[in-house]
Amino acid sequence: MLRLAPLAARCLPAGPRRGPLCLAASRGTIARSWPPAGDRGPLSRQVRAAASGERAPVLKTPKGTRDHAPAQAALRERLLSAVVSCFKRHGAAAIDTPVLELRETLIGKYGEGTKLIYELQDQGGELLALRYDLTVPFARYLAMNKITNMKRYHVAKVYRRDNPATSQGRYREFYQCDFDIAGKFDPMIPDAECLKIVHEILSDLRLGDFLIKVNHRQILNGVFAVCGVPESKFIPACSTVDKLDKVPWEEVRSEMVGEKGLSPEAADRIGEYVQLHGGLELIERLLQDPKLSQNKLAKEGLGDMKLLFEYLTLFGITGKISFDLSLARGLDYYTGVIFEAVLLQQENEHVEEPVSVGSVAGGGRYDGLVGMFDPKGRKVPCVGVSIGVERIFSILEQKLEASGEKLQTTETQVLVATPQKHLLAARLKLISELWDAGIKAEMLYKKDPKLLKQLQYCEDTGIPLAAIVGEQELADGVVKLRDVATREEVDIPREKLIDEIRRRLEP
Amino acid sequence: MLRLAPLAARCLPAGPRRGPLCLAASRGTIARSWPPAGDRGPLSRQVRAAASGERAPVLKTPKGTRDHAPAQAALRERLLSAVVSCFKRHGAAAIDTPVLELRETLIGKYGEGTKLIYELQDQGGELLALRYDLTVPFARYLAMNKITNMKRYHVAKVYRRDNPATSQGRYREFYQCDFDIAGKFDPMIPDAECLKIVHEILSDLRLGDFLIKVNHRQILNGVFAVCGVPESKFIPACSTVDKLDKVPWEEVRSEMVGEKGLSPEAADRIGEYVQLHGGLELIERLLQDPKLSQNKLAKEGLGDMKLLFEYLTLFGITGKISFDLSLARGLDYYTGVIFEAVLLQQENEHVEEPVSVGSVAGGGRYDGLVGMFDPKGRKVPCVGVSIGVERIFSILEQKLEASGEKLQTTETQVLVATPQKHLLAARLKLISELWDAGIKAEMLYKKDPKLLKQLQYCEDTGIPLAAIVGEQELADGVVKLRDVATREEVDIPREKLIDEIRRRLEP
Repeated sequence: MLRLAPLAARCLPAGPRRGPLCLAASRGTIARSWPPAGDRGPLSRQVRAAASGERAPVLKTPKGTRDHAPAQAALRERLLSAVVSCFKRHGAAAIDTPVLELRETLIGKYGEGTKLIYELQDQGGELLALRYDLTVPFARYLAMNKITNMKRYHVAKVYRRDNPATSQGRYREFYQCDFDIAGKFDPMIPDAECLKIVHEILSDLRLGDFLIKVNHRQILNGVFAVCGVPESKFIPACSTVDKLDKVPWEEVRSEMVGEKGLSPEAADRIGEYVQLHGGLELIERLLQDPKLSQNKLAKEGLGDMKLLFEYLTLFGITGKISFDLSLARGLDYYTGVIFEAVLLQQENEHVEEPVSVGSVAGGGRYDGLVGMFDPKGRKVPCVGVSIGVERIFSILEQKLEASGEKLQTTETQVLVATPQKHLLAARLKLISELWDAGIKAEMLYKKDPKLLKQLQYCEDTGIPLAAIVGEQELADGVVKLRDVATREEVDIPREKLIDEIRRRLEP
Repeated sequence: MLRLAPLAARCLPAGPRRGPLCLAASRGTIARSWPPAGDRGPLSRQVRAAASGERAPVLKTPKGTRDHAPAQAALRERLLSAVVSCFKRHGAAAIDTPVLELRETLIGKYGEGTKLIYELQDQGGELLALRYDLTVPFARYLAMNKITNMKRYHVAKVYRRDNPATSQGRYREFYQCDFDIAGKFDPMIPDAECLKIVHEILSDLRLGDFLIKVNHRQILNGVFAVCGVPESKFIPACSTVDKLDKVPWEEVRSEMVGEKGLSPEAADRIGEYVQLHGGLELIERLLQDPKLSQNKLAKEGLGDMKLLFEYLTLFGITGKISFDLSLARGLDYYTGVIFEAVLLQQENEHVEEPVSVGSVAGGGRYDGLVGMFDPKGRKVPCVGVSIGVERIFSILEQKLEASGEKLQTTETQVLVATPQKHLLAARLKLISELWDAGIKAEMLYKKDPKLLKQLQYCEDTGIPLAAIVGEQELADGVVKLRDVATREEVDIPREKLIDEIRRRLEP
């Protein structure tokens, strides 16, 4: 479990240090509709360099991607293992699917996201693309193997040619951590578990206060229907409503009337609904709503929602749940309950400047996706949650930076050291014994390092013990075991060394 | 540590089951030099389907890739964690780099491998490719961050448009597990550690007997020089020698004379050297060789090799090491010691048919690669090892299949069950308490499941305990805790349940 200092605000650069040769791709001006803005320019620096025969090594990672230095890799390992241990606590099995998928597997599943898919060059053979999320590959996997019942998690990288906002943890290559339950079950039991998982993870990580917004696609569709929106415009209306967490209602209304072609009256009626949020009492009120209660979709959705709240009450987590009619979620494939968790800004005095990181988890029910892959359209109902680990990672990085804590990047337990020259052979023999006994050990790769340098290395890298063999120790058949923190040294008979080290390292 | 049944032979399909819709991409006949044979055909099935407007979902993963079902994912986790724990035992820190690299970062680093690089479509912006290995990205990382000293490991997927041979564990998307030591150190100390690591991992995994072949690029170059090969032909000659482990000398000789244009005399002289293998005595013999001992490169290489064997003797591992002059390694970037580990066929009576899996680890010294990325050509000497986990994984899969052992894919400790109807609320409340206490718990997603079904689920999935709440238990404030294996049941007061479960689960 991660226990770090309170949320701090200073925005440190998330990527690794870049040398003076780090050059951004230059941007051309030729307008094209295809590539997202900010990523245009057929004559990138590299191409020009190549064309001119110039050989300037461009030392950078691709736009929107980054390396993880050891401290970042160690922090990420802690974060991912906290998430995975929650998924395992809920009985999920791991699966893995390729980073590459057939292009046609991905096309037509993501709505507006489709244009952000990375495609591979046609080098002969199949047309391939990089996966955009882990949900569509999961659905493909279920259909391909005719699996109708599965609880799985998957932690892996996905790819989107989006405009990166790296300081907020938005990258083009990023991890997703997904937990999904596939199968025909009694309503709302798996859905409630997904929300419980979000609650557990965000509580465990101690990121500060959070809120999980919940809505239902059928309720939204019911609202559109009773407000006079034709069914063909449900999806566009939905993606407009989704912006309500970022812009005020007036702007959303004008997009509905302008761009999406809804009547002003319909928009106004929608506005009355989608600005509502609350708990069980709001569900009850809407179930009595003269218009909504007449709509089959809305009624079913509200029924689900009531049941869901009943289960969430048993889980004791309704305090962090808000039934929010403005929540719409961008992806096309959702069919039922949808949800999104956001961190709340803290009124904490230690925070100099509030950090807005947006949603840190999201998910929902998608009962139709697997059927899109099945030749006979057989459906496998699914519900799942994706933890926004990149955003959480940015926050943890900022916290760590603010705390001044140094994350240990290696697990070495013992440094094998020598106090005099010409003892390399003694070090090699001893370290080999330690490795063979399963003890994590290092030595400096010098023939004759100074003892002080060796002990300094222990302090710098957090190695707790030094096993020192000098001429005297060799003659006496002992090893001097030094506690790096207390500087206490004891001679241990060689044959008892392994046991003594193990004893000292016991938690 | 993995302890599985002895090496078995039957070749099971490595990928997941495929449905009847699993279609291979059809192959066209237009000859092109670029794409590797077997992957041609501009009109793949998908394209034709799309062109004709037909909507047949092609349910497959891309050629040379595969999904991991839960049992495979669990096996892979065991394997990778065995490898990583060895890397950590040797004090390495983790880093991560993107799957995508700038195309120019990869080009010109892999010799003949370059044509196997996956390139991304030019969608505007930078020209990108999928990484081919983890070594070049590591060198790019060091140069970019001006790091001159680092011991790191990296476990991640790499991509090669090679002809897949999936039954031998050769895929187009596969894991590499690399350990590398960068920095200027006293000679052969890090090199010896890399060989020790190979020895430890292959011993730990109990894959059977193995041999680590070692050679030195400078010795090879010295051999070529004294045999009269011009320096411009060292690399082609090297890649021909590399085939000696697969084809007899006569074929290698004829490729040298024919394709590579060496004189028959030179080839014969090379043949006398590259068919030699042995230990320290061979090194000593070659140091006395009238021709080789006059060559600076060879002499330096043999000096290194002598020192290396001295260190390997201290590590106690020379029994599995063979100085083999036919080992050349395919990649251009090696400059010093090179090595490759192969499994030896077993004379074991349980084996019906010997499995040939080729090399299971390899690596070497590459002192020039980082300098290729540094604008001033500053060198950072490096040596590293890559564990061939895909081949090892195939072997472990076959062993597992042969043993009939079922790998547990989940870690669930307790199933929360009810014996009567209308007790869903009781189950939800109890399971929530268990999750909050960190206990791994599941329940069936049904309102009123039969007790027998619930207990059957425990047996099927290996859950050791069932926590049963019926009407009587609720009235008495207890939970019936059932040991699934012994079928023994005890009533535990509700407030003592968590402690009792923890006690029972103690190792």
